[in-house]
This record gives sequence, structure tokens and C-alpha cells, in this order.
Amino acid sequence: MTARNGSFAPLDPGRRILMGPGPSDMHPRVYQAMGAPLTGHLDPYFIGVMDDTKVLLRYVFQTENDLTIPISATGSAGMETCICNLVEPGDEVLVCVGGVFGDRMAQMVERHGGRLIRLEGASGRPFTPDQVREALAGCRPKLVGLVHAETSTGVLQPLEEIIRIVHEHEALVLVDTVASLGGTPVKVDEWGIDVCYAGSQKCLSAPPGLAPVTLNERACTAISGRKTPVDSWYLDLSLINAYWDGDRVYHHTAPVSLIYALREALVLIHEEGLATGHARHALNYEAFKAGIDAMGLGFFVDAPHRAPTINPVLSPDGVDEASVRRRLLEDYGIELGGGLGALKGKAWRVGLMGQSSQKDHVMLCLGALEETLRAEGHEVAESGVAAASAVYADSP
Amino acid sequence: MTARNGSFAPLDPGRRILMGPGPSDMHPRVYQAMGAPLTGHLDPYFIGVMDDTKVLLRYVFQTENDLTIPISATGSAGMETCICNLVEPGDEVLVCVGGVFGDRMAQMVERHGGRLIRLEGASGRPFTPDQVREALAGCRPKLVGLVHAETSTGVLQPLEEIIRIVHEHEALVLVDTVASLGGTPVKVDEWGIDVCYAGSQKCLSAPPGLAPVTLNERACTAISGRKTPVDSWYLDLSLINAYWDGDRVYHHTAPVSLIYALREALVLIHEEGLATGHARHALNYEAFKAGIDAMGLGFFVDAPHRAPTINPVLSPDGVDEASVRRRLLEDYGIELGGGLGALKGKAWRVGLMGQSSQKDHVMLCLGALEETLRAEGHEVAESGVAAASAVYADSP
Repeated sequence: MTARNGSFAPLDPGRRILMGPGPSDMHPRVYQAMGAPLTGHLDPYFIGVMDDTKVLLRYVFQTENDLTIPISATGSAGMETCICNLVEPGDEVLVCVGGVFGDRMAQMVERHGGRLIRLEGASGRPFTPDQVREALAGCRPKLVGLVHAETSTGVLQPLEEIIRIVHEHEALVLVDTVASLGGTPVKVDEWGIDVCYAGSQKCLSAPPGLAPVTLNERACTAISGRKTPVDSWYLDLSLINAYWDGDRVYHHTAPVSLIYALREALVLIHEEGLATGHARHALNYEAFKAGIDAMGLGFFVDAPHRAPTINPVLSPDGVDEASVRRRLLEDYGIELGGGLGALKGKAWRVGLMGQSSQKDHVMLCLGALEETLRAEGHEVAESGVAAASAVYADSP
Repeated sequence: MTARNGSFAPLDPGRRILMGPGPSDMHPRVYQAMGAPLTGHLDPYFIGVMDDTKVLLRYVFQTENDLTIPISATGSAGMETCICNLVEPGDEVLVCVGGVFGDRMAQMVERHGGRLIRLEGASGRPFTPDQVREALAGCRPKLVGLVHAETSTGVLQPLEEIIRIVHEHEALVLVDTVASLGGTPVKVDEWGIDVCYAGSQKCLSAPPGLAPVTLNERACTAISGRKTPVDSWYLDLSLINAYWDGDRVYHHTAPVSLIYALREALVLIHEEGLATGHARHALNYEAFKAGIDAMGLGFFVDAPHRAPTINPVLSPDGVDEASVRRRLLEDYGIELGGGLGALKGKAWRVGLMGQSSQKDHVMLCLGALEETLRAEGHEVAESGVAAASAVYADSP
């Protein structure tokens, strides 16, 4: 992009329709909020913005947890925050690994000195309560980690029964809700999730760079009972919360503009209503599914186990998946994700998250995919657009 | 800010003149850049933005270091990135502690398992080469940490001779340039700084949320020779650089909007020219100093040791420093910082950094301070505005 004479071209990304694994599209009001005048990170006005953000995050997480704040870094730092605050060297931790993000959780447990017990999942399937019960028969972990919607596979993990089992074994439950929060129910209090993190840039449709976390009393007690200091200073929740609560003790300079934007994105979710938003995500997934089925394409995951928010669609034999993505980006401005982990080169990951879970996005994506597959010489069975239209026509 | 009926007021921070310890004011072009349409974090256009950002960061750091990138979190995460990548459990590390940020560095060394040797500085004075030489006679550290401009005290630490001494002892030099980079020369290559980090929101005048770091070959060799994995996954430079360089291996979702903004802020610095920008910071500090002296107020640090970018001005006896800051914020929208650490309640920290280092800011701040001190019943010796005017009149 650098010009030859050493000057730099003005920023001009053009327009994108973000239907990959995130970031998702942002509402114009979120762009506006991000551009609001900067204040200092201890400015009384900004303290009010922080307080609103906590109230709104509790709404989305469906929790009364006091400690509900955004970490000043991206979703994976949210994962690391939960792990490094809860895991002390030598602590046993069971991680259910069904994809790239479960594997990442396992790596982090080991880096922070935990004794990892790794439960491998079946490809493209959620963990069953029996699998977890069996694993727990042979160990006594302090923490059990699960991914709610695995961004790499598109599997949605049912949680309620597994959480009951984990609690019978007196362990804490850690859940990754990066690709689910805001798009499908995450009932932190009702389900009994002890620790939970998300990312700002998926179903919340805020800019990437923040990781909401929420911890209940049991989790906070486990942290305050630590025998050793948390190895990370930046992610030490006790220090961070002294800034987000009560005395507003300076810890780091908050990313003010990102928090403005997150607050506005959460206000939009609050205005729509969480249940209405979840129903919107479900409907757009159904329409998309009908379109993909009609076109004769396949999903990686069987229908009952799919997240409504992100799904790998298998690239048909003989089609160059990267070439299709490139055409969609160049001709339409549509971003789909490539396959991650075991699906690299074999699938498109299609995100229907937050502001990107819209009828116009679904219809355009199906139409563009149809046209592009034909252009790449692949025969499409039936019109995906027509099949999706029928779903929308039938919806109340 | 929450309204009673559960709806949330539109975001409206009003206007601020940011003259505290950061964030500093941002140029309108930086706000515009931050509001550019989101792309994915692997989008070809965004890869170009990343590459530009690296080129521009090298310009500001005055380095050819290949590994020169922004970490996706705030300045203190930059500090932690450098420490956790370079320090393995048991490594001896000498930290020169002259204020809050030196102390923070020391804390991080201990959290990451380093054997800390703490060299305490004299209050409000930089470390002398002799002090460092003496400390190094009794130990054999892998790393020596120094703060270039200590935001809590306003001391500017001369570096060249100390770096030579440290290198004679075959240790690496880590320098905090959070409050200096862009405002006063930081000659990474010429001075031989091995590892260096900064923050986006001070003299660079980008939004808070990013921490530029640069590491030379010696530092990279030390990292690749580690015997143990870096304890932090999120801050593991080898993983991060695999995304910022070459293969673009996905690590985390980059904070796209912040990187747009950082790039634009760096383009502005490049357009002005680094030397011109440094001269601007020096001139505005001289004018501010003349004003403060004329008003009969005192600086915490003696003139030869002051950073041109951030300085604590002592609140006179009988004046409530918090009340003055409150009035400046309410009446003028001016943010000054409160004292930090030992200066809590005793000083205003005045930042003249990046876009906040401007004649209009200096003159307004001096005038507003004069009026406010009188309103608080304090006698001001002479006009600070007149004294600063004389400095500007004399400048070429």
C-alpha cells in the first residue's frame, strides 16, 4: 500500500459484508460511538460509560454476577484471563477438546502450570454427558473447560446436564461463549456457569479488541483463595476489578473508544431484546440452511448439533475453496472464513452473527455463492435463494 | 448514566482537552480512520495496513528491527510482552525503579519467575551510569530494565552510556518508552536498545489499546533459545509474529479499527517529520515551563532531568489539587492527571504529548490554571500566559 515516494495512501478499505468467523458487521451507531471524543480513563463521564457497560454485559450474559467486565484485549485474552486467574501450578484441569479453541484452552492450561487432562471429542459432534462423567471418574479437577460454540467446527455444545455433572464433582465450569454470546442463549446464572468469556466482535457486533468475562461468587472465592500470585499482571482480575469497581484504582489505560463502541453495540442488543435477537439468529440460520441444502452443498456438522451463528459449509469436490472465497471478496465484498484446523482447505466458515445475521446478508450470500460456484464450473442443484425465500415467507 | 426506564442515554462525552498522562488528543484524521469500514483480520487489504504499520513503527522507533509490531492490548501489556518472552524462571533481572512504572516492571519480573534485583532511584532524579555500574558489579543479569520517561515522576532517563555499560556486562537492555516515543528521540538502533515498548495513546496520539514493541536480533535470539514455553499464550511473540509476518498464521482477531487508527496517527507523524515533531514537543514544553515558573509554581523534577512530554507540577500549599482538576474539567474540559504513587494529592501531571503538544493547548492550560488558582484563593505571581508568549515570540 506504501507509495513509492514514501508517502502513504489514505485509508480506504472499501465496503465489506463480513460473514466469516468475525469480525461481524457493525451497526452505523457503533461506528459513530467509536468516533465520540476521547475522555481520560478516569474521567467521571467515562466511569458512567463503564458502569453502563457492566449493566449491559450482565443483561447479555443473563447473570447477576458482580464481576462482569470487558478485558482490554481480544477474545483469546479473555480465555487466558479466566485460566490464569483460576489455575495455579499443579491444579488439575479437564478440558473438553472438540476443535481449535478447545485445544487453545488446553495449551493455556499447560502454559500456566495446570495439570491438563485432555478429553478428545468426536469430530463434528458435541460432548455427551456420559463422556464427561466417565472422564471425571478418573480425576479430580478444580476446573472443567468447555467451548459452547466451537468456531472451528460449528458445533453447539449443550451445557446444562454437563454442568450439573461437573458440579457434583465439585469442580468449576469454564465456558467459551465467544461465538455464541448474543446469538444464542447463554444463561450463565440459570445453567450455573461459573466462569465465562466472550469476544466483542462476533454476535455482539462491536469492534474486535475486547473480551467480556463474567465470574460468579464461587469462582471469585477460588481466586481470592489462591496461594500464589497470578502469573500475568495485565490479566490479573483482582487488579483489573479494582479499576472497574469501587475505588477506580488505576491499572492500565482503558481502550476508551472500544468501550464506547461496545456499550453502543450492547445498547442495540438491549433495544432489540435478547430473545428477539436470538430468534433472528435462529431464523436466518434456518433460511441459510435451506439454501445450502437446496444447492446440494453439505454442512460439516449434522443438523441437530449446529450452532446458529457459525458453520463450516463443505467445499464440493473439484472446487477450489480459496478461489471461491477470493471471488466472493473481489466481486461482492463478501468475506467468508476459510477452514481452520482439520477443515483447512475443505470448507467455508460462514458466520451469521450479530449485525451480519440479517435477511439481506443471507440472500446475498446464497445468490453470490450460487453465481460463483457456477463461474467455477460447479453445477448447483437448485436455487438456494428460492429455498431461503420460502423459509422467510413461512416465518411469522 | 442509565435512565430510570431502563433505556440508555446516547453517548455524548462532550469535548475534552486531554493534557493528562494519556490518552492525548487525537487528530480528526485518526478519528476518521478508526471509523473506516471493518475488514476481516486476514483480508488482503488489512494485511497491507499491517505492513504499513510496521514500516511506520520502524520509522518512529528509528530502527531496522524486523520484529516491530503493535501488541493487541494497552501499554502495560507491551511491558509484560517483553518481560514474559525474555524472562524464564530463575533468570536474573535488574530493574531500575524510579517510579510507578519501574516498580510495575519489577512486579512483572517476579510474577514471571525472574530473580529480581531492584535498584532504587533517588526521588525525582534519573539513574547515573555509576549507579548502574555498581549494581552490575554484584550480579549477572540476563536483562536490565529502565524507564525512559517515567510517567509518574516526569524524569527523563539518559540512556546511551548506561546501555553501553549494560552491554559490557552482556545483558540485554529493556526500555519503557511509553511516554517518550514520538515526543522525544528514541534511537533504538543508534543507542543499542535491545527491547522496547510503547503505548498508542501518548505521544503517538492514537486511541488507547495498542502497545508497539520492537526487538533486535539479540533479543530474538534470546527468545528462540528459551528452554521453557512463554507462560502467556496471548503475549507469546513467536505466535504473534507468525501472524504479523510471512505466513499470516491466525493467532487472535486483530483489533482492526485500532490498527487503522494507529496507522493514520503514524502517517501524521511521518508527514510532520520526526525531528520537527520532537522540536515541537521541546518548544511547547519550554513555553509551558516559562509559564509555570512565572506563576510561581514548582515542578517536581529539576529542569535538566525533565521529560518534555509529561511533568508533575506541584500543587501549592493550601490549594486542593483535586478541586483544581475538577474545575479545569468542568469549566474548560481540560483533563490534567492527578499525582501517582508518592505524588498522590500533591501534584498535577501535565502531559504535552502528540496532538496535545500544541501552542493553543499550552496557552489555554496556563490561562485556565491561572484563573482557577485565583478562584481557589491562591495568589499567582505573574502571568504564565505572558511568559509563554515570550518563548513563542523568540522561537524561530
